[in-house]
Amino acid sequence: MSEQSHQKWQFTFSRDVQRLIETVHTLRRIWVFILILGLYSSLAVAKEFSPFETLLDLPSDIFALFGAVLSIILVFRTNRAYDRWWEARTLWGKQVNISRNLAIKVNQFASLEPEERTGLQKSIAGFAYALKDHLRSKATLREVPGWTDASENPQHVPAWITQRIYAQLTDLLHQNRLSPDELRICDTDAHDFLNVCGGCERIRNTLIAGSYRSYAIKCLLLYLLSLPWGLVEDFGLLTIPVTMIVGYVMIGLETIADDVEEPFGTDLDDLNLEALCETIDRTTAEILDVTPVGAPAG
Amino acid sequence: MSEQSHQKWQFTFSRDVQRLIETVHTLRRIWVFILILGLYSSLAVAKEFSPFETLLDLPSDIFALFGAVLSIILVFRTNRAYDRWWEARTLWGKQVNISRNLAIKVNQFASLEPEERTGLQKSIAGFAYALKDHLRSKATLREVPGWTDASENPQHVPAWITQRIYAQLTDLLHQNRLSPDELRICDTDAHDFLNVCGGCERIRNTLIAGSYRSYAIKCLLLYLLSLPWGLVEDFGLLTIPVTMIVGYVMIGLETIADDVEEPFGTDLDDLNLEALCETIDRTTAEILDVTPVGAPAG
Amino acid sequence: MSEQSHQKWQFTFSRDVQRLIETVHTLRRIWVFILILGLYSSLAVAKEFSPFETLLDLPSDIFALFGAVLSIILVFRTNRAYDRWWEARTLWGKQVNISRNLAIKVNQFASLEPEERTGLQKSIAGFAYALKDHLRSKATLREVPGWTDASENPQHVPAWITQRIYAQLTDLLHQNRLSPDELRICDTDAHDFLNVCGGCERIRNTLIAGSYRSYAIKCLLLYLLSLPWGLVEDFGLLTIPVTMIVGYVMIGLETIADDVEEPFGTDLDDLNLEALCETIDRTTAEILDVTPVGAPAG
Amino acid sequence: MSEQSHQKWQFTFSRDVQRLIETVHTLRRIWVFILILGLYSSLAVAKEFSPFETLLDLPSDIFALFGAVLSIILVFRTNRAYDRWWEARTLWGKQVNISRNLAIKVNQFASLEPEERTGLQKSIAGFAYALKDHLRSKATLREVPGWTDASENPQHVPAWITQRIYAQLTDLLHQNRLSPDELRICDTDAHDFLNVCGGCERIRNTLIAGSYRSYAIKCLLLYLLSLPWGLVEDFGLLTIPVTMIVGYVMIGLETIADDVEEPFGTDLDDLNLEALCETIDRTTAEILDVTPVGAPAG
Amino acid sequence: MSEQSHQKWQFTFSRDVQRLIETVHTLRRIWVFILILGLYSSLAVAKEFSPFETLLDLPSDIFALFGAVLSIILVFRTNRAYDRWWEARTLWGKQVNISRNLAIKVNQFASLEPEERTGLQKSIAGFAYALKDHLRSKATLREVPGWTDASENPQHVPAWITQRIYAQLTDLLHQNRLSPDELRICDTDAHDFLNVCGGCERIRNTLIAGSYRSYAIKCLLLYLLSLPWGLVEDFGLLTIPVTMIVGYVMIGLETIADDVEEPFGTDLDDLNLEALCETIDRTTAEILDVTPVGAPAG
Repeated sequence: MSEQSHQKWQFTFSRDVQRLIETVHTLRRIWVFILILGLYSSLAVAKEFSPFETLLDLPSDIFALFGAVLSIILVFRTNRAYDRWWEARTLWGKQVNISRNLAIKVNQFASLEPEERTGLQKSIAGFAYALKDHLRSKATLREVPGWTDASENPQHVPAWITQRIYAQLTDLLHQNRLSPDELRICDTDAHDFLNVCGGCERIRNTLIAGSYRSYAIKCLLLYLLSLPWGLVEDFGLLTIPVTMIVGYVMIGLETIADDVEEPFGTDLDDLNLEALCETIDRTTAEILDVTPVGAPAG
Repeated sequence: MSEQSHQKWQFTFSRDVQRLIETVHTLRRIWVFILILGLYSSLAVAKEFSPFETLLDLPSDIFALFGAVLSIILVFRTNRAYDRWWEARTLWGKQVNISRNLAIKVNQFASLEPEERTGLQKSIAGFAYALKDHLRSKATLREVPGWTDASENPQHVPAWITQRIYAQLTDLLHQNRLSPDELRICDTDAHDFLNVCGGCERIRNTLIAGSYRSYAIKCLLLYLLSLPWGLVEDFGLLTIPVTMIVGYVMIGLETIADDVEEPFGTDLDDLNLEALCETIDRTTAEILDVTPVGAPAG
Repeated sequence: MSEQSHQKWQFTFSRDVQRLIETVHTLRRIWVFILILGLYSSLAVAKEFSPFETLLDLPSDIFALFGAVLSIILVFRTNRAYDRWWEARTLWGKQVNISRNLAIKVNQFASLEPEERTGLQKSIAGFAYALKDHLRSKATLREVPGWTDASENPQHVPAWITQRIYAQLTDLLHQNRLSPDELRICDTDAHDFLNVCGGCERIRNTLIAGSYRSYAIKCLLLYLLSLPWGLVEDFGLLTIPVTMIVGYVMIGLETIADDVEEPFGTDLDDLNLEALCETIDRTTAEILDVTPVGAPAG
Repeated sequence: MSEQSHQKWQFTFSRDVQRLIETVHTLRRIWVFILILGLYSSLAVAKEFSPFETLLDLPSDIFALFGAVLSIILVFRTNRAYDRWWEARTLWGKQVNISRNLAIKVNQFASLEPEERTGLQKSIAGFAYALKDHLRSKATLREVPGWTDASENPQHVPAWITQRIYAQLTDLLHQNRLSPDELRICDTDAHDFLNVCGGCERIRNTLIAGSYRSYAIKCLLLYLLSLPWGLVEDFGLLTIPVTMIVGYVMIGLETIADDVEEPFGTDLDDLNLEALCETIDRTTAEILDVTPVGAPAG
Repeated sequence: MSEQSHQKWQFTFSRDVQRLIETVHTLRRIWVFILILGLYSSLAVAKEFSPFETLLDLPSDIFALFGAVLSIILVFRTNRAYDRWWEARTLWGKQVNISRNLAIKVNQFASLEPEERTGLQKSIAGFAYALKDHLRSKATLREVPGWTDASENPQHVPAWITQRIYAQLTDLLHQNRLSPDELRICDTDAHDFLNVCGGCERIRNTLIAGSYRSYAIKCLLLYLLSLPWGLVEDFGLLTIPVTMIVGYVMIGLETIADDVEEPFGTDLDDLNLEALCETIDRTTAEILDVTPVGAPAG
């Protein structure tokens, strides 16, 4: 591999080490649980040095039993959470594509006037901003960039904006500026606006089947509660830090899955919907030669 | 991570812990089996303290043998069951998309009269309600919201309603209110109504290949029946609770897979088809500016 | 979970236990192999109690070596076999969808006469019956329900029937009863008839790469042949039943994969093509208001 | 399961056992490596019986370390190689479908003359034969069945033949024998000819990322080189055959993956492209009622 | 297997062995880390031969604990990184297909003049070159082969070139050289230009969720830092080389995943975008019978 990739790797590693240090403070998030776990494991150590030494001595085989099931459920949770995250990203990527395509096609086919171009861009970019709000909370039309002076107040803002787009296309058709065939070519993309919206709603509204979430927590608890009693005979005083570290690692994997499976929030791992909206806004504005409705001049 | 996500995590964890407590009473579902397992494992303990101590002493290697196969089949069952569940959810999500798209397109292209809009919404929302009934049991046209005064009694209600939609589209075409090109644009979505229906029927009618289901039960039994004899030498009296807990965990994973792979019922993990039908009803009603046929005013 | 689901679970479990009992007689299928394995393992036991006790004593580590590879290949076989089975089911589900859609569309657009409806239904349902025969053995046109008095004898019956469908569509086009646009809407579905056929042919004609099948058998043999020599020191006389049970479990998984990967036969796990053909026949007959060609009146 | 399936299973098993015997001679392929491995492992045995007995004594834990990583990479290699093989098969299956569909559609819509049918079949079947040559080595137009008297010598033969197909379709359009709408219906399939070609080129030209291939070899070597030193203490003289067998099994899995991931060659596991070309040739010839260009009369 | 495949296998193996030797020098990339690891592990060895022998003695069970989680996360990283790489390759393969199809279709339908063919090829091939630059850094229109004398300087070059393609198609439509139906047939492919671009942007801009990357590094560190203390009792002086080798293997897998998940760079494993651009350039030039804009004459 080249010198360049050597440097890149060092850069990547440094970045990750830096990130590692940053995440130390995320310990705060789960430190209560880790601390309780530490106290709990000291019970096992205390027992070991007490007259009841042989009581409740779990052979370490117990980890083969619980660990296997825990692995199955953690692998399942990790993969499914990531799939949801990546599907959400793919849907937004599709929104970028169809926004650009629609802008190019309508502009070329109908030779739009400046005002019409502004109107079209306002609808396309507005759809993206509205979808972002819609996925995070309730979208309100007046808070969507470009639509602040709207008088309507629809319940489902993305669907309402899609209606505006189809209304504009139908107008152009009735003015014979768009042929029926060209309308159909535009529909290929326009038609996917609500598909993207519906796909994102599906991801937001349907978490991984609840039984699996509750089952994962149960297995994790069983595993962590039995851990110190199995370790103590071999590990002695080291049982306490080892239990805490293993607890941190295991709870960590479950927690990340929990975060990642809800990709539309504002967490560190969530999708950067603001940046995606601005990309749509800026590139459609360049294509249509107008000013972006919401993005800072780029 | 932000303070907000910190709180969110605590909230999530609390929710899961609460859920955990709730599911304790689901123990009732399988307590008979767990109890039998406990009694059975006490046989092994009794033997250990009897003169026949060395008889039937299974080395714990046996778990490496049976456990590996059990893992394979449980992973397989879990993933396949979830795939079915998620595919069912995706199909219903598609139904939401195509219902909205069809409503927008027909309305914009044909400038529908109020009665026509009511009729179209009745068909689109009725299809969703009919599909729900169709997947749970036999659908009857008169029990579908909006169609209570219908005189027909078709066998396959969703197919019959799809015919009504195509009849309405053909009417608009013959009145020259919908051009052939616009008809085709509408067909893109209308055409998927029966695809969604067929996809759901496939999931409902075809369970995971029966041999795998029976095989999973066989492996589970073999594993649980041999478990106490292998544990007893190392675990002594702890054999009984450990066997019961492991039994609960293993039977639990299989049981969840069994529930999740049939997503159209009314169990806790099943899809909330009522809410999906009402979403379709309400959003198409807003698009077409009519009253929903079955959903409470939202 | 509700009382209802409680009962359902008990029902499911009972059904599976019942199934379990039924499958005991499937032991017959592989009892020769299991018996040979039992005799073979008694060699190892005999050796253990003979003067050559220490000869050929395999440490049980050997299972970690062979077992890992065996797991890899069995997981691979199980998943791939199931993928094929589910893809076959999906293709037939698609056939149900496109058959219904085509019937609805042609009927609505061209306002078919009774004879034409009979002819169309004969082609659509006939395609399904012909495809079933084609996938199981050689299809003969005269044995297809509805085509018993045909004079032609084509080699590839499904392709021939597809030609009849396109001929009927072209006729309607030439009579101006189907517009070119409507023809294209119908083609969306008609066009998939041969895609479904080709997809099923692909699954039938191409088994999982032969080397993997042969490799799986090799690993299975190596594992089972070394098993008793590794078990005997720890298990003593129990070696014989344990070897036989492990053999039954391992051969079982491979055998199920072998069955499931060929989904078009008439085995217990194979797709119920008869029921699918009758579904297509009956629902298209209801849509077109004619008598099914092959299904009993339903 | 039925008696029939009983027999089938016995048949399948016999077939596999027979195959097993056949593949013994494939040992030749890797016997040099296995022999070297055997000699190498005898070093470990020699050491064990020498005065340096305790030197280089690897505890068998080492296999847990190396074996886990080896499993990960072998599972990865096996699945990815198979995915490539199956995708290649799916692409050729698609070629079968679109060839038949195109033949049926053009024939029905344009009522082709005998010569035109011959010409069309020559293009469709020729494309398949040319694609086969193109994927194996350099295709030459004159060596393609049906095109032996061509005067052109294009670089990219499949693309050139696709141009001929579009030229024929455009001709029919200019003669008003194919309406624009019918052209579009034909394009649905014609258009996929080059997609299949491009997909196959992608599979042929892009192997699994090189680093993973090299990494797999490295892990395999590390594992096999450390194996005898870890086994020798427990296995004694049995170390040599066990090392050779494990080596055979492990190298075998990697070798199969290596073969399967290049599906267009002429190995035992490679796709039977000749048979697929003849299927396309024969079925399109039957549809168009002409003589196949390259397949023996069937 | 045939003699041919025997030779092929030997060839493949030799190639891989050769590659292996080459990659030895890639050790340079991570030798600092390996060296530090070696020094660190000598601490554990020193302790073992000191009076504090029993201090910090980690039982080797610790590897079962940390190793399982490490396996989960490395499998996850490897598969997801490869999926990204292969999706990127598939997108570029699609670009090859649609470039060829568009060239064939426009040329056949509109009977292009030589200048028009040059213009079309300049746009199609230019798009590929521009996309390559766009994915690696900022693309500038004047640096794209064939566009060096352009006066415009658009921000998003691939979108701008796509506009040129649609402008050319619209021109041909207005000159009645392309019918509306033919335009739509061309749009099927033209429309995917920006979809490929958007798909590649998605892969470039969105790495695997950051928490998983940081988590993988954390697990790796925990594993490697605890490794020597667990090995030292059994392995003695061999602890140092074994720790270094295991470290090399584990860090290697993570590093490859890190490289492969960013497929648009110029590393050894990255896609050969130059070759793909030249393929597009050369084959579209042959189809349109013009000179490639950037590829050397082939």
